[in-house]
Order: sequence, then structure tokens, then C-alpha cells
Amino acid sequence: MRMVDLISKKKQGEALTNPEIDFIVTGFVDGSVPDYQMAAFLMTVYFKGMSAEETTALTLAMARSGERMDLSAIEGIKADKHSTGGVGDKTTLIVAPIVAACGVKVAKMSGRGLGFTGGTIDKLESVKGFRTDLSTREFIETVNQIGICVTGGTKDLAPADKKIYALRDVIGAVDNIPLIASSIMSKKLASGADCIVLDVKTGSGAFMKSVEESILLSEMMVNIGHLAGKKVSALVTDMDIPLGNSVGNQLEIMEAVHTLQGNGEKRLTQLCLTLAATMLMLAGAGDKTACEAKAADALYSGKAFEKLCELVTAQGGDAAVIRDAALFTPASVVYELKAEQSGYIGRMDTEKIGIASMLLGAGRETKDSVIDFSAGIKIMKKTGDYVKQGEALAILYTSDQGLLQQASEKYTESVTFTTEKPPETPLIYAFVEKDHIIKY
Amino acid sequence: MRMVDLISKKKQGEALTNPEIDFIVTGFVDGSVPDYQMAAFLMTVYFKGMSAEETTALTLAMARSGERMDLSAIEGIKADKHSTGGVGDKTTLIVAPIVAACGVKVAKMSGRGLGFTGGTIDKLESVKGFRTDLSTREFIETVNQIGICVTGGTKDLAPADKKIYALRDVIGAVDNIPLIASSIMSKKLASGADCIVLDVKTGSGAFMKSVEESILLSEMMVNIGHLAGKKVSALVTDMDIPLGNSVGNQLEIMEAVHTLQGNGEKRLTQLCLTLAATMLMLAGAGDKTACEAKAADALYSGKAFEKLCELVTAQGGDAAVIRDAALFTPASVVYELKAEQSGYIGRMDTEKIGIASMLLGAGRETKDSVIDFSAGIKIMKKTGDYVKQGEALAILYTSDQGLLQQASEKYTESVTFTTEKPPETPLIYAFVEKDHIIKY
Repeated sequence: MRMVDLISKKKQGEALTNPEIDFIVTGFVDGSVPDYQMAAFLMTVYFKGMSAEETTALTLAMARSGERMDLSAIEGIKADKHSTGGVGDKTTLIVAPIVAACGVKVAKMSGRGLGFTGGTIDKLESVKGFRTDLSTREFIETVNQIGICVTGGTKDLAPADKKIYALRDVIGAVDNIPLIASSIMSKKLASGADCIVLDVKTGSGAFMKSVEESILLSEMMVNIGHLAGKKVSALVTDMDIPLGNSVGNQLEIMEAVHTLQGNGEKRLTQLCLTLAATMLMLAGAGDKTACEAKAADALYSGKAFEKLCELVTAQGGDAAVIRDAALFTPASVVYELKAEQSGYIGRMDTEKIGIASMLLGAGRETKDSVIDFSAGIKIMKKTGDYVKQGEALAILYTSDQGLLQQASEKYTESVTFTTEKPPETPLIYAFVEKDHIIKY
Repeated sequence: MRMVDLISKKKQGEALTNPEIDFIVTGFVDGSVPDYQMAAFLMTVYFKGMSAEETTALTLAMARSGERMDLSAIEGIKADKHSTGGVGDKTTLIVAPIVAACGVKVAKMSGRGLGFTGGTIDKLESVKGFRTDLSTREFIETVNQIGICVTGGTKDLAPADKKIYALRDVIGAVDNIPLIASSIMSKKLASGADCIVLDVKTGSGAFMKSVEESILLSEMMVNIGHLAGKKVSALVTDMDIPLGNSVGNQLEIMEAVHTLQGNGEKRLTQLCLTLAATMLMLAGAGDKTACEAKAADALYSGKAFEKLCELVTAQGGDAAVIRDAALFTPASVVYELKAEQSGYIGRMDTEKIGIASMLLGAGRETKDSVIDFSAGIKIMKKTGDYVKQGEALAILYTSDQGLLQQASEKYTESVTFTTEKPPETPLIYAFVEKDHIIKY
């Protein structure tokens, strides 16, 4: 088998076989397929696409490229969720405790943030003492003991994905649905859960800017999951409006706590309950109505909040800050960003809000950036709100006064004023399960 | 400027500017653009194409990437020809002396063969003593003295082309018209002639398999030449039937001699006269009728043959073998390949004939292969001929008996027998000049 022939085959629009795709992935990881040939292959895939079978083969080859989590020592069904990433997306911190409080095991491996999106692991590390580097044994034991664990990558999962993604990034082949789908699903398949709910973000603060593309991506990932023997569903959800009112690590932990205490922002709460109910359904905990009721009960009874406290304690964190947010070390610089004009907020560019938060120190510009956990943004006015000139648009938190100006400018840019109240936009655009799509 | 942004721009179908194309070519040559980004770029060009302006900019950037021949020390107009390569294509050996005999300077830099196509330089080197490594000064002096010189690359012309071609080869991005056009024309523009006639081969033994594609390639190259201030025309000519009756280095020299002595095969002679007349027209030597008459006179008067002898002598070769082919060292093994059946030859796969010749030792399988000048094939029956079982199809020449079997098999494969005489196919399919195409 020669790589140049496989590139030519794909160039002519032919489907590659499973052994051919294995050859490419294995060869790229072991170095026998050089990066220039892989670059040409990825670009060819960009233009000629891949069938569901090819994308599944690619995903499985990537999943097999490194170690795989063996969760068989955890009794019962293991549920997982994955968000394609958005600004202020703290849903895992709320959804995972809800699901665990309902008795379904959540063995969750999360990532760190890069660029303007935050990572669950970074957010949890803003709780003093919280360990995200558990060994596989600790991870499994924690799930068996309290039904939930959230850790960073404990193993070298899907190294092919890391290497391929790095190449896609420098050749401009990131925005391709089969490649995005295989990248996400390779890590999910390697991490060993039985049921996976995908939260595919769409809009200005998400990677997928259109609902149609998000549905296509969802269908492809659900299909791959099923071909690989997993139960997978996807929700296509809005990322044109930031999720909740806070962006930044410890601010988002606080908001997750408020939400689990029943005081969350309406859209954030609704999304978390829907995601949790979908995970419960996939795990066989009942029909839609029953699972929605279970999720709501876990939230409003306080059981999910207690599960979060258990999780924090089990992973070495100080649960006291969860019970009393005043114990978090506050940011040294707090700045009220005032509206320069009156009017309705017609649109928010959530990507710019994410960048503003990163500029304050809450995110990583490069892999080596150090995160300021106290930094971030509290959003005071959102899309659809009327604002008077001089009212607070947002409160900016940082440890460095010098970062305020650029962040303020970026935040101000993100807000578009209108004279009329804009129409409400949906929170959930579509629900995608195997061979079935419901569009809202 | 960032390479990843230029790839993305092209990916979206936008045209790149001249400075952007310069950035890519210069960066690839100096190493600041890595090969994986160049591979992704070339593949993107493959799928999204390039405009005439972009292709010209690419060609000029490649032409500028190394040294350029300065032929200003040669008085008068310098004419050049280029063939896209075919099996048994010895036209340069015939055309160049005809044109020079008519008083138009021919300052020709030729290449070596690789794979199944032969190179003019290899053919000339089968004449004992013939030097193809002239210095620029010797090259210019020879043209000024006798009106003609044929040498190998005296300078490092268009190194960007060499580097880009090597990459295209291993990523399967060879068969793309803008990339082929820029590759050919970058070398032609760097080699300094004023008028260039392109012989674009089409058919089974050529790179371009269809007439339509060959016309597109011709148009693009003619256009590039004109945008670069050169006079360029192209002929689209047949390569479904081998040119003349011989394939192999010294056999082709002998056939060129016979042709210049007025005893050439009809189609070969006709093509050479047409190419020569076209070069004369571009050089301003008169209208079509006048130039055709001049070319025919130079051939049939023997003046062109004398010019070939002058050329061989001037470049250190033994002109005695030109005047008496019996002085060539014959191949030690001569094998008559007999027809296994009777019938008309309906079709010949000229590529396979080229491979058979290579297998006999006449060509290079890799860059380091050593050529056997005496090896090759004399074709005894061609498309349209009736052959009786047992009659000679071809005579194979080699120095190694062991090479005969594989070559015989390959040659036999190349011939398709039919019961009816096949219709005659055109020799010249099209003539392409600036803004004007004549299809025959």
C-alpha cells in the first residue's frame, strides 16, 4: 500500500477501505506517512468528503491509536457528555451531578480550555485542592463510591487525533465536518462510556456557525457512535447568547452552584435539565417524561448540589467554597463596564466576550499561558434586555489593572444595540438521535 | 502574511495576489513555508484551480527562483521548442537543425529522460564525444557561430519548479493543468528564448490523455508566455501512435538522420516540418506559406542535415557516425519479435512501448539508472498495418539477453489486433496561438 495511491483514490472520489484508513492513521502516528502526505490527504478529504463508513473507520483507527479506558470495573451503565465548546459553558458542572444524583454513573474525562473557550478541568481547578490528575484506579474507585468523577486525561487517549488536529490547524483544514466528527468521537470512544450525549453548540461563540452544519455534524457523530456500539444522541443548542451570566473559571463554578441551588439563569437551567434528561434516557432510566421529572427533582431537591459537594470532597477539593462562595479569593480588580448608549441589546458576539474574558486572564492564549482563576466577566445585560446609558453592561474581574482597557473594548465591540426589542431565539435547535431528527 | 491564511483564501475559491504567490514560492524555496503547508496548498489548487493571472504569477515566481539565462549576447531572435514528452519523440533533433538552417537562432536547453519518455540530451550523448555540459559562454558562442546549440541545463533554472514537482509527485498532485503549465513555462521563461513553440502531446503515450485537456493546457501556456512578453504558440499532436519507427537513444539519432536526409517516416517528417514552420513564423521569418516552404527547402536540400553535422562537430561529437550510421556500436542482442496472430493493428499503447524500451535499457527507471545507448526498439508494424502471423512486429535491441522476455511481453501487450483496418487518426489536433485556436 502506498500513501500516494490512497490520496489519488480519495482525490477521484472513491471511498477508502478500513485497512486503507488504518494504514494512513497508523503510518502517520509511527512516522512512516510523512506530514506532507497527510496534509495532502486531509485537504483531499476536505474537498471530497468521507462517507459515514469511512468517517467511522477513521474515528476507530484514531481511537485505537493509543491507550483506551477500560471502565468495566465500574458497575452499571456509564454516561458521558461532550460539548463542542462555547463561551461560559459550565453545563458539565451542573449536568454531571444531576445525572449522578439520579443513580446513573458519570465517569467523565474533561479537557482544558484553549483560546476563548474554557475547559471544565480549569474551572474545577479554581476550587482549592481539587485534583484533576487522578490515576485510572482512583478514577474508577471514585465513580464506584459516589457515582461520579471528573478528571483530566488520565491516559494517552487517541494520540492520532492530537497529531492530526495539530496538522489540520496549520494547513487550514479545521472546518470540515467528517474531520471534526472523527476528532471528537475518537476521544469519546477511547474514554470508555456506554452512553454519550453531545451538546453541539451553534452560533457566534461556537465553532459551527450555522444550525444546518451543526445538525450535519450531529448526525455524523451519532452515526459513528452507533456503528461503534455506543448509545449516542446530540442536541444542537444556541451559542449566540452566552450561557448563563458568567464567563471565567471561579465565576462559573459559583454560577454552577447557584444553578444547582435552584437559582440559576432560566436558559442555562433549562439546557442543563434537558442534557441531564437525555443522558438518563440513553442510560435506560425511563422515558422522556420520567427522565425530565427525575432530573428536575434531583436539581430542585438539592440532591444534585450535594452530589457536587461529594465530588469536590472526593477529589480533594475544599467543599466549603462550594457551600459559601464568599470563601473564594476575589479578583483584586473589579471594574463596572457602563453602557455608552441606551437601547436594546440586539445581538451579542459571544466569541468576542470569550476573547475579552481571555484578555482578563481567564483563558489561555497559548498552551503555556497561566490561568487567573479569579478573572472573568459577569454579564449584567443580555440579548433582548433594555439598557440605559451609564448602566452596567458587565463587571470585569482581573488581577491586572493593565488588562482592563483591551478587554473593555473587546466586550463593548461584542454588543450591538437596536431600537426595537429583538425576537427571542431558541435555546435548543434540534435533537438528533439514530435515524431521527427533531428540529425545534 | 501567514501561509495558513493563504491556503484558506484559496480554499474559499478566492484568487491570490502576486505578492501572495511570491510569498508562497519564495518561502517554499527558502524553507520558511514547510512542505506540509505547501502540500496542502498544492492540493487546494488541484481542487479550486487558478486563474490565468494566478498561474502566470506562479510561473514567474518559479522562473525567478533561480538563475536565468541571459541570451542578449546572441544577436537576433532566439527560438525554442518544447515537447511535453512522448515515446520516440526525436523531433528536436530534426526541427532545430531545420530552423537554424533557415537562419533563425536556436538556443536550446534540453532535459534528460525519466521513466518511459526519452530526453534529447540522452539521445545526443549516444553520439561519441558529444558534450551536453557547455558553460553559458560556450553555449552563447556556439549559437553565435553556427546558429544552433543544444545543451543540458547550464544553470540552476527554476529550482522552485524542481522542489514543487518533487512534492506534487509524492502527494498525487501531478495531473493538474495550472500546475503542469506553470512547471513547463517557468523553465522556458528562465531559459531566455524570445519565441517558443510548444508541442503538446496527447494520447496513450503522453501525459495528457485527451485532446480537450491538451487544448486547455496549450491555451494556458500560450497565455502565460504572452503575459510574460514572449511569443508562444502550441500544437496539440498525436501520441497514440509512436513518432517514427524507433524508440531508444542511438536508434532515434539514426532515424533523425534519415529524416534529415529526406527518407523519414511520413508522419514524423510532417510534424517536424510543421513545428519548424511554426518556429519560423513566430520568429518573423514570413507568413505560413513562406515558412512552410523554407522549412521544406532546408530539409530536402540537405542544408538541415549539414546543420546537424555542424552542431555535432561544434559540441565535440563525432560527425562521422551521423554521416554513416554503421559506425554506431550496435546492440549485442537483436531480437525479432514476431506476431502471434494475423490481423490489422487497431491500436498501440505507446506508453507500454516506452516501458518496453526502458526495460531493454534505453531509459531510466530511477534518476540513477545508467542508460544503454544501443538499446531500444525498431517498430516494424504500426497502427493501421496488416500483419501476418510470424511476421516481425518489432526488433528489440539490448545488451542483456535477460531483459528480452519482460520487454517482449510488454511490447506484445501494447498491440491490439482488429479484423478491420482502423480509420486513420490525425497527426495534429489543434494549433493554439494567442486568442486563436484552430482545431483540425
